[in-house]
Amino acid sequence: MSFAASNQVNQPGKGDPFPQILKPTLLINRERAIRNIRQMAEKARASGVRFRPHFKTHQSAAVGEWFRNFGVEQITVSSVDMACYFAAHGWRDITIAFPLNVREIEKINALAKELRLHLLVESRETARFLKEHAAAELRLWIKIDAGSRRSGIPWDRFVEIAALAAEIRTSPRLNLQGLLTHAGHTYRATSPGEIREIFRETALRMQAAREHLALQGFPRLEISVGDTPACSLVEDFKGVDEIRPGNFVYYDLMQLELGACREEEIAAAVACPVAAKHPGRGEIVLYGGAVHLSKEFILTKEGTRLFGRAALPRREGWGKFLENTFVAALSQEHGIVKTGQEFLSQIQVGSLLMVVPVHSCLAADLLKQDQVIV
Amino acid sequence: MSFAASNQVNQPGKGDPFPQILKPTLLINRERAIRNIRQMAEKARASGVRFRPHFKTHQSAAVGEWFRNFGVEQITVSSVDMACYFAAHGWRDITIAFPLNVREIEKINALAKELRLHLLVESRETARFLKEHAAAELRLWIKIDAGSRRSGIPWDRFVEIAALAAEIRTSPRLNLQGLLTHAGHTYRATSPGEIREIFRETALRMQAAREHLALQGFPRLEISVGDTPACSLVEDFKGVDEIRPGNFVYYDLMQLELGACREEEIAAAVACPVAAKHPGRGEIVLYGGAVHLSKEFILTKEGTRLFGRAALPRREGWGKFLENTFVAALSQEHGIVKTGQEFLSQIQVGSLLMVVPVHSCLAADLLKQDQVIV
Repeated sequence: MSFAASNQVNQPGKGDPFPQILKPTLLINRERAIRNIRQMAEKARASGVRFRPHFKTHQSAAVGEWFRNFGVEQITVSSVDMACYFAAHGWRDITIAFPLNVREIEKINALAKELRLHLLVESRETARFLKEHAAAELRLWIKIDAGSRRSGIPWDRFVEIAALAAEIRTSPRLNLQGLLTHAGHTYRATSPGEIREIFRETALRMQAAREHLALQGFPRLEISVGDTPACSLVEDFKGVDEIRPGNFVYYDLMQLELGACREEEIAAAVACPVAAKHPGRGEIVLYGGAVHLSKEFILTKEGTRLFGRAALPRREGWGKFLENTFVAALSQEHGIVKTGQEFLSQIQVGSLLMVVPVHSCLAADLLKQDQVIV
Repeated sequence: MSFAASNQVNQPGKGDPFPQILKPTLLINRERAIRNIRQMAEKARASGVRFRPHFKTHQSAAVGEWFRNFGVEQITVSSVDMACYFAAHGWRDITIAFPLNVREIEKINALAKELRLHLLVESRETARFLKEHAAAELRLWIKIDAGSRRSGIPWDRFVEIAALAAEIRTSPRLNLQGLLTHAGHTYRATSPGEIREIFRETALRMQAAREHLALQGFPRLEISVGDTPACSLVEDFKGVDEIRPGNFVYYDLMQLELGACREEEIAAAVACPVAAKHPGRGEIVLYGGAVHLSKEFILTKEGTRLFGRAALPRREGWGKFLENTFVAALSQEHGIVKTGQEFLSQIQVGSLLMVVPVHSCLAADLLKQDQVIV
């Protein structure tokens, strides 16, 4: 262990790998993140599918640059503002993978004049709205619900899908690209095998919908899918044309729980100063709460809520998870870590504890302004 | 109902009370918030206690100004950065109600030179650290755990409390003000009566600790308490010297659930554009997710997670809660509202739906940059 076995307050700087970190800060392990990107990019290339990573996880221009080395020029985002941000950082082919928000049509038109903009539609009303209001070419994808039941037209409503495609075709500015889905139900799967099965089922369902559209006179439509669990666990993406995973760049406890990554692939953790110790009940109070980690939790088999796992900081980021040590409660700024007496007697007030979050996308969103790349 | 009973996309601006709102935005009802502030300020005055409101809920200089009209000059915040923010907006007496983060000592010293800064300590190690590093007068409060079991020295460890007080007295720069607690266990209470009982018990426990310190030669120490449920439900604050509630300025579903407020006292809601409709399963997809509302939920008696209640926008803010209509799931940017067929057939894609959040502090933190006061 790298800290002295004393009960004194740690003076930041003394044997501290990150003396510059004063408050909860997202640490990004560059080497791991780049390895994660390389792995996904190579798998996509081997399968002959387009890799259009989702940038909603990192929301960072700096991290975005790491993707360019692997030939990535087309990206996915989840809001118009995020598209504007990455457009300002030189990205010229962007899919906004969220059902069109018609209230932002002016910003959308401005973007579409600058770059290749892809949007999602799922109703004829929205398509008609775009017909009336589009001021530049828009590349449209019909959002399909292939089983996740969050948004999109159910995959087997062929008539409804074809009617929407026909509506789109009546406008010269609206260019139908294909069918897009997010198989978010992989997050509810109970085994890696089930996740792989969902991928296969999703591809078959999307193909059936495409087949029907081809018969209706809409040839050469593409299929876009993308959720990190399936994209991590499936070796061959045959049957689809594009994948859009996002979370894999950092991974997190949720992905680990699903079997979609290994502990040593997790590339983001939140550095939290130790604020107090309570040996009487085996607890550490962290400066690091819901406004840094989000209130996302994993329900353990024992029915305990787990908001993060803890590790010690290391020059290269952080070490292995500490055994029997986890974030058990969060309020706005406080995190309560449950741990054993041995670790408690060693950790000092003022030291940093690294918390691996349950959901890295939400932690990265909360800590957009407080990030350090190691 | 203010919207047309059609299935068309709403063109923002047409009969829309907030055409300027394009994306998820926190709406603050000024009249209600000021009424909430007045009520709490008057109750504190009638009880003869100092009202030092917690500004972590709104984190807004503009909302902060509303408190000045009620004589508030002393405030509470939950981080050093928040203290810096309000210092920059003219506040000159600030308590940072969080166990001291020793890594921020330089910012703390800079603040203490500018204004009356109050800090929390709960261990002799931290007091010794301050003795060595304080560069200006610091007003200290011993953080007491009066039953919440989050942080602080348990109230009945009189010897430990007195030892910390003695440690503080050895430094001329450290000025012991009193004992401070946050009775956060009121949030786990099951009735208003239980919350009032916790307030009385907390006051008695704090008085016992103060009594012991007085016998040890520490006279005239103050008692500071403050949680919104108790401060809302108790009529008379006798027995304490200072209250620090924060959430009451907006209230939220959690406070409503606890019986600490009425629906018409809730002063903040998140305006969310309707992105899609799914009549087949009685669902509306909102642009408004975990990055706008936070993942805080209430578990209903039926075991359902409820992430927010919905209402229609009105010129003055929003109307009454829609019956059988609530946010049932959240992902990063999506909110899924469960509702009935009648409402579904009336609401339009592009319209705004108002979501009253479970925890207004977290929603206000997430939407710091996107707020409208009505």
